[in-house]
Amino acid sequence: MIIVMNATATTEDIQAVVERLTERGFDIHKSTGAQHTVLGVVGGSVAVDARDYELLPGVGEVIRISEPYKLVGRLFRKEDTVIDVRGVKIGGNEIVLMAGPCSIESRSQIFESAKFVKEAGGKILRGGAFKPRSSPYSFQGMGIEGLKHMREAADEYGLIVISEIMDKSELPTALKYIDIIQVGARNMQNYTLLRELGNMPKPVLLKRGMSATIKELLMSAEYIMAGGNHEVMLCERGIRTFENYTRNTMDISAIPILKSLSHLPVIADPSHGTGIRDKVAPMARASVAAGADGLLIEAHQDPDNALSDGAQSLYPEQLNDLMKQLRIISQAVDRTIAPESQKVTVG
Amino acid sequence: MIIVMNATATTEDIQAVVERLTERGFDIHKSTGAQHTVLGVVGGSVAVDARDYELLPGVGEVIRISEPYKLVGRLFRKEDTVIDVRGVKIGGNEIVLMAGPCSIESRSQIFESAKFVKEAGGKILRGGAFKPRSSPYSFQGMGIEGLKHMREAADEYGLIVISEIMDKSELPTALKYIDIIQVGARNMQNYTLLRELGNMPKPVLLKRGMSATIKELLMSAEYIMAGGNHEVMLCERGIRTFENYTRNTMDISAIPILKSLSHLPVIADPSHGTGIRDKVAPMARASVAAGADGLLIEAHQDPDNALSDGAQSLYPEQLNDLMKQLRIISQAVDRTIAPESQKVTVG
Amino acid sequence: MIIVMNATATTEDIQAVVERLTERGFDIHKSTGAQHTVLGVVGGSVAVDARDYELLPGVGEVIRISEPYKLVGRLFRKEDTVIDVRGVKIGGNEIVLMAGPCSIESRSQIFESAKFVKEAGGKILRGGAFKPRSSPYSFQGMGIEGLKHMREAADEYGLIVISEIMDKSELPTALKYIDIIQVGARNMQNYTLLRELGNMPKPVLLKRGMSATIKELLMSAEYIMAGGNHEVMLCERGIRTFENYTRNTMDISAIPILKSLSHLPVIADPSHGTGIRDKVAPMARASVAAGADGLLIEAHQDPDNALSDGAQSLYPEQLNDLMKQLRIISQAVDRTIAPESQKVTVG
Amino acid sequence: MIIVMNATATTEDIQAVVERLTERGFDIHKSTGAQHTVLGVVGGSVAVDARDYELLPGVGEVIRISEPYKLVGRLFRKEDTVIDVRGVKIGGNEIVLMAGPCSIESRSQIFESAKFVKEAGGKILRGGAFKPRSSPYSFQGMGIEGLKHMREAADEYGLIVISEIMDKSELPTALKYIDIIQVGARNMQNYTLLRELGNMPKPVLLKRGMSATIKELLMSAEYIMAGGNHEVMLCERGIRTFENYTRNTMDISAIPILKSLSHLPVIADPSHGTGIRDKVAPMARASVAAGADGLLIEAHQDPDNALSDGAQSLYPEQLNDLMKQLRIISQAVDRTIAPESQKVTVG
Repeated sequence: MIIVMNATATTEDIQAVVERLTERGFDIHKSTGAQHTVLGVVGGSVAVDARDYELLPGVGEVIRISEPYKLVGRLFRKEDTVIDVRGVKIGGNEIVLMAGPCSIESRSQIFESAKFVKEAGGKILRGGAFKPRSSPYSFQGMGIEGLKHMREAADEYGLIVISEIMDKSELPTALKYIDIIQVGARNMQNYTLLRELGNMPKPVLLKRGMSATIKELLMSAEYIMAGGNHEVMLCERGIRTFENYTRNTMDISAIPILKSLSHLPVIADPSHGTGIRDKVAPMARASVAAGADGLLIEAHQDPDNALSDGAQSLYPEQLNDLMKQLRIISQAVDRTIAPESQKVTVG
Repeated sequence: MIIVMNATATTEDIQAVVERLTERGFDIHKSTGAQHTVLGVVGGSVAVDARDYELLPGVGEVIRISEPYKLVGRLFRKEDTVIDVRGVKIGGNEIVLMAGPCSIESRSQIFESAKFVKEAGGKILRGGAFKPRSSPYSFQGMGIEGLKHMREAADEYGLIVISEIMDKSELPTALKYIDIIQVGARNMQNYTLLRELGNMPKPVLLKRGMSATIKELLMSAEYIMAGGNHEVMLCERGIRTFENYTRNTMDISAIPILKSLSHLPVIADPSHGTGIRDKVAPMARASVAAGADGLLIEAHQDPDNALSDGAQSLYPEQLNDLMKQLRIISQAVDRTIAPESQKVTVG
Repeated sequence: MIIVMNATATTEDIQAVVERLTERGFDIHKSTGAQHTVLGVVGGSVAVDARDYELLPGVGEVIRISEPYKLVGRLFRKEDTVIDVRGVKIGGNEIVLMAGPCSIESRSQIFESAKFVKEAGGKILRGGAFKPRSSPYSFQGMGIEGLKHMREAADEYGLIVISEIMDKSELPTALKYIDIIQVGARNMQNYTLLRELGNMPKPVLLKRGMSATIKELLMSAEYIMAGGNHEVMLCERGIRTFENYTRNTMDISAIPILKSLSHLPVIADPSHGTGIRDKVAPMARASVAAGADGLLIEAHQDPDNALSDGAQSLYPEQLNDLMKQLRIISQAVDRTIAPESQKVTVG
Repeated sequence: MIIVMNATATTEDIQAVVERLTERGFDIHKSTGAQHTVLGVVGGSVAVDARDYELLPGVGEVIRISEPYKLVGRLFRKEDTVIDVRGVKIGGNEIVLMAGPCSIESRSQIFESAKFVKEAGGKILRGGAFKPRSSPYSFQGMGIEGLKHMREAADEYGLIVISEIMDKSELPTALKYIDIIQVGARNMQNYTLLRELGNMPKPVLLKRGMSATIKELLMSAEYIMAGGNHEVMLCERGIRTFENYTRNTMDISAIPILKSLSHLPVIADPSHGTGIRDKVAPMARASVAAGADGLLIEAHQDPDNALSDGAQSLYPEQLNDLMKQLRIISQAVDRTIAPESQKVTVG
């Protein structure tokens, strides 16, 4: 911590700050300049709230010099973390596609989804069973039954399953069916849930909250890693700004920033990032061009009749077309992406 | 719902939209103007996602005409809701002070807090037992033991207890000790928790999320009311903007807006709204001047040594001084506020 | 400037930073801690862009320790600046009301406005002659002719004139008619205009830009003061946030913050701050409760037929009622406000 | 305009609204639904402020159905506008690079810049002569003399000149030297300047204001086009959000949105969009992947010693490397971009 005294601070002011700090076990380096006295503060055993010092007489500014996170940072681990989920590597050279419907609606729907996701070159099947809906009167998801269908569909087509969990009480049952646990934007700071996930032997995809800073996203990932679970993916899905043409403003610059601050894989979600189908492909392309390790995309065989988020779901053909463009763009960033599968026949 | 067709929409475009709507059970009123055809859409049994129609050819704009909330709105209930918590009325003519420390730190600390809160004219004692901290390495609260101390302190001084619950698993035990359950900003859209609170026979104070719109706050209150619990208070505690001089930007205008849209009591939290002690009093005054029904304020007998949020906690004398100013301001808005208590002696 | 080196910075990294700094004429104080080396940097003749150092190898963070503004700050001048405009004191103990229509529409309209403003206790008459309209197809104001009418009306009723100037080319003529030059939010960073105003012998009211930080507002005031004109008032008029129920979110907390950072008077504009009539009074009350030195309010004798911004203009009776409330609130903050005038008779 | 009456509106309320509208020359279509009466309002000769009706008793919501802009929209012109500036086509199939230093610093500096821009495949040379600096104490640009140097340098290397104008008084002289006039973010709503540019026979690049919505950017372009100048380019350069890791948050999604709403060319400025050199290339790639027609990039032969914005300026080699990546990405969106020039020899 650095404490910059005001130009008008008196000797007594400075002395009072120094005493407060030494009482609390800090070491102090004092530099006296022409205008300002600057105190470098190190050590101390307790967490520091910079505001405690800002209020002291004569103090101009208090600056924290160390990041509050540790395990998620590049200082803790230099090389990129590559998470291996049943053979699918996330964070390595290959960009990974996670796709599927917003909600699991029926057994046949999720089987059809698995088929077209596989054919497009997807490795991971997404689908919601517990839906966080802003209205209590909206469809709230199929629950455990939906997860069972998705598990079977994924197994049939050789896919990995990702799905959102909203409360720690859902964990035990859900864990049987899910390979990657998704934490939604609204739960990014649900610390009870994060702590619980720190003890789970399952990879977690953590979505950035609608108004979370990049540092806060990293701090939430730190909660999970502090519990011992180091398999965390960070997901940019749009932030809230004054611009309301789109539901959210996708912060594409967060992708290269997260990659430079942290060793964890970074996934982009252009479906929630834009909220409208015809902007999903441009933003998916932009995400890959900016360095994303993977994409999380909503797609549906019949978006017009989807039970939720149909308007931001791609048609299967659009997913295919997008993947063709991404194969070109991935070369520009020295990455690869899965080739289109041949027509999948099962059974 | 109103659908405005583009000036360039063809007869076929319009026909296609009409068919889609009738299929789904809607009635349509068509008005043909010089430039635009406008479709008024009523009825229908399913929840509507306006975006489903925005994407159809020829559609210019889709506008929802009814608010998605019902029970929280003035159309459902014209008169102000007054919540009676063991004799303390919230939402009536008297403005209510809720005050106390950020965290319960010890038995003696919360007893001292209860004493100075009572003396200042407070009716409700606040104090956190389960703390949502952004770092996993920070003090996480005293838990149930803290709640027991607070209950005793409140009873000793004739106060009501408000405290935050972060997860539905904490509810059964906590309910024994708490009079008003506080839902924090980070949990405003924790729908699992909200649904559970809808079934509880306890008043709830619901804080606005850091990036929640006024409508979203109302929708979250609707979740609780839809479950049958109609005793909900809305709390403005600052939103996130580009301005970072203060932790949050307190949206004082939300106070009169909430009062006009909803019949529920509106409480202001200038401590979190500003994050720094010397701005708490001005914003508390502004809140009352703008029409708040109550204030939730952090105060501590020794803020310099508080375990959390000391920098935004008032000294007991400051709380007293503030109440003196509020007694004047409340007259300007035809309200009252409690007189200073005489020195409290217990025993 | 403080440069904090990363924990992993090498001796060479540190040496390279030190050399770069000494080349540019800075003095350096080096403190070596357990984890970080910290460089205190003073002197230097050129303006510094902190980012130039952030990019050097091994650098963790670069912190500017002195505010970029000087003349506007409390360090330059401790006591509040009181601006005397033809006998009306702004920034002193009395809170000043500036009111009138959005646009000057006709001679009779501005005369009527002057009358009811005077009667309500206003000291300063507002009214726009050059209107910054977001559409090229909207009413653009009466220009110089309007200013002439306003000057006469103000003189008739013993009021001071405030009006907006949008371009430096309008200055010479306009100066004949205006007592206080208003710079609109959209021109807060029109540096050509600000520089010109620095040379004028006229007080300036500078509105905060829609997305300007508090520091940026102060820097723009610094532009004017640097030119020699020290009579500047700062005006909060709402910032842009994700909340779109109101046109802008009025940042009431900016009022006490500006008062503590700067000695300049702070004026609040609740008309633009909210954009809708029925929220103007609550926010005017909140502004005074938070410490504003004055209010700038739109009012019109017939808002329903106003040529611009009728929806946010108060009726004359509403202005009177508001002033009654403000007389009470001003006591809570140890201020005064003008009494209601007796019926004004002229001639 | 559509006016939705509240469910509780009385017949008198509805009648009063209808009368107000007919008085002002509007035609009204009334639809009576089960819950709401909806009034479709067409015609009328005056500009409408929706808020005027929102305040009437019984009115629930007022919705404008036509966009306030005309000439900039796709309804006015379906095909993409391609602007031909002395043979360089902007808005066509080829993506255009505009690059150069933040400020013109000397004759030799701008000549060197022109050389490396040309070699990288750039068509247009950027460089500031009049600098909008937030501090009055910073370098304010070389003025006209700088423009003369830039003109010569551009001519020597066969490049087009783009440069910023801050005030209409600078236009006459500056026009001699500049091919494309740049309007900076801070001047996006300087209506005096916009109106003047509407009369100029010169293409204009209009930057989006820091807090401007997409509609406001289009309205500002409308100002220029309404004057008769149809050669306008729209430029996304980052908006202000709560995230402060980067100076601005570049709104990449604005690129495809602007392309669908308007026929005008869309240029991306990743230098100001990020403010830091190592994020410029990822965001430039993202912009092209999202559909930008051109890029405006700051580059400098010696960024470490640049007089302004060195920290966000690319080294010449970085510009070359970026162009190599863009050549690949442009294929994914069926576009082309200039090949690298051979070493340029002049004279």
